[in-house]
Amino acid sequence: MRTAILELLKRNGGEYISGEELSRNLNVSRTAVWKHIRALKQAGYDIEAHSRLGYALRQNTDRLLPDEIRVQLTSTILGQEIHYFSEVDSTNTEAKKLAANGCPEGTIVVAEAQSTGRGRLSRGWFSPFGQGIWLSVVLRPPFGPMDAAKCTLMAAVGVNRAINAVTGIGCGIKWPNDILWNNRKVVGILTEMSAEMDVINYVVIGMGINVSIEEFPDEFAASAVSLSVAAGRSISRVKLLTTILAELENAYILVKKSGFAPVLAAWRQESITLGQQVKVQGFERSFTGLAVDIDADGALLVKTSQGVERVVAGDVSIRPAGSL
Amino acid sequence: MRTAILELLKRNGGEYISGEELSRNLNVSRTAVWKHIRALKQAGYDIEAHSRLGYALRQNTDRLLPDEIRVQLTSTILGQEIHYFSEVDSTNTEAKKLAANGCPEGTIVVAEAQSTGRGRLSRGWFSPFGQGIWLSVVLRPPFGPMDAAKCTLMAAVGVNRAINAVTGIGCGIKWPNDILWNNRKVVGILTEMSAEMDVINYVVIGMGINVSIEEFPDEFAASAVSLSVAAGRSISRVKLLTTILAELENAYILVKKSGFAPVLAAWRQESITLGQQVKVQGFERSFTGLAVDIDADGALLVKTSQGVERVVAGDVSIRPAGSL
Repeated sequence: MRTAILELLKRNGGEYISGEELSRNLNVSRTAVWKHIRALKQAGYDIEAHSRLGYALRQNTDRLLPDEIRVQLTSTILGQEIHYFSEVDSTNTEAKKLAANGCPEGTIVVAEAQSTGRGRLSRGWFSPFGQGIWLSVVLRPPFGPMDAAKCTLMAAVGVNRAINAVTGIGCGIKWPNDILWNNRKVVGILTEMSAEMDVINYVVIGMGINVSIEEFPDEFAASAVSLSVAAGRSISRVKLLTTILAELENAYILVKKSGFAPVLAAWRQESITLGQQVKVQGFERSFTGLAVDIDADGALLVKTSQGVERVVAGDVSIRPAGSL
Repeated sequence: MRTAILELLKRNGGEYISGEELSRNLNVSRTAVWKHIRALKQAGYDIEAHSRLGYALRQNTDRLLPDEIRVQLTSTILGQEIHYFSEVDSTNTEAKKLAANGCPEGTIVVAEAQSTGRGRLSRGWFSPFGQGIWLSVVLRPPFGPMDAAKCTLMAAVGVNRAINAVTGIGCGIKWPNDILWNNRKVVGILTEMSAEMDVINYVVIGMGINVSIEEFPDEFAASAVSLSVAAGRSISRVKLLTTILAELENAYILVKKSGFAPVLAAWRQESITLGQQVKVQGFERSFTGLAVDIDADGALLVKTSQGVERVVAGDVSIRPAGSL
């Protein structure tokens, strides 16, 4: 009923519709209409109520509200349970709490803003209100902790496909899981997990997607860009989010059915790291070389003058052409 | 001062010592003595107070109280921070909470009883009051999640050594990390971790050690035994606990210095699985074969008629001789 009222308000294009008309159309009491309107307002919809004219939905609502997501949702596991926040410390932190308390696989946490958004290696992530998608997805994969790195590559493949499908801007994946456009970051992915020795309890795949940020703080200004800037048009966040859930689910189902090989092959196809000179900044040492491949475990293979190095951790930056 | 008072009470062998004597010996006021006595009682010590005779420490106090542990502690990382519970749901659950909130490496959680003790594969663990060591240790190792399995073997080596050093009963390790005596379980270890793709945030090594349980519930009766029964004498829980912390710390320091190879070699030495016919109960299938070795990742290698299988998960039981 709530969805039906919302649909009528939307169809009315921001014009007022009377409580009487809503009540007649949907065959419910005026009191019921009023209660549902109140619930919609509490859920974040900007609905104007006028004693004589009735109700009007403000068209400037561009929020990642659960009801909006559900309308466009095509995935059948991911996004069945949605936790929405106007602001949260970090969607990953929230999702880990939910996962530890037994939330179902596919549960998502989405926020308009993060107060302490995090990237890999404890770095900060700029997450201003309404200008990005700050999203975490809980999976309970039947893998072991040794598959964690491959899970991350799987996530990158799903997200990269969704970004390219919705925006058409031609992004690629930087090892392990950043999505870049023109060598600037449009998406960062932070995969965290809780596991026993041989069984993963849960994986949380967190994503920060720069959708319409016009100005980044100094520390990110040179390395980050927004999808709307890259595409030269506005991007629907709800459409992008639901497409990400669908593509991530496709990749996940494929892995569960056929193992990681097809997804790793896709990763190679969509990678912008392979074939490039890279600088590897490890925890203990750094070196440069040619990124030649990933192996079956998801490690990056870098050819140096000493041989082929296997990189499983740390930071890999692509060196500008000719800067050996 | 609290420790000094406790020492005097202990030296007095359960006999009363007057508040005046304590106050004179330690050169503090009677009020100070009284306050420290109260603190000791709150910490779990069974101290009798008599208006005329003074104070006496009951000698039947056999608790894993932090003050008792600290007196015998030789490790320098493990056990510097001790969280003691008379009863807790699960020491691992408590340790994971502490770790997520940033507790220092080496923090331990110890309880006299667990209400919902857990073993591997979500099995229950019988944890009655005062008759075992229910212990969890928080590590923050500089490893990746791919090293998780090896961490578990490392823990088994440390604990097995401590058990044998204190009891002399000659236990061995069943893959991956149960400690067995006469084919019956004296210790179970449950290693859990929180990690990003390439960095472990923390590892919690949980141990359930059957010290003096006389009667097990039916489900454990055939497969479990207590150290005191095996040794034919009572075992000091505090001595065993502090020895475990010391040996676990030794193994950990060795791994950080020299990698996992020496610890895996020790594991092979102390294993009772290798060279045995085993039944492997995997998530999807089960098979039998000869356990021939572990590989560099800690996986068990089992030779079957089809070739050598690599076992990273599931349950491995040793088959009685001649039961092919």
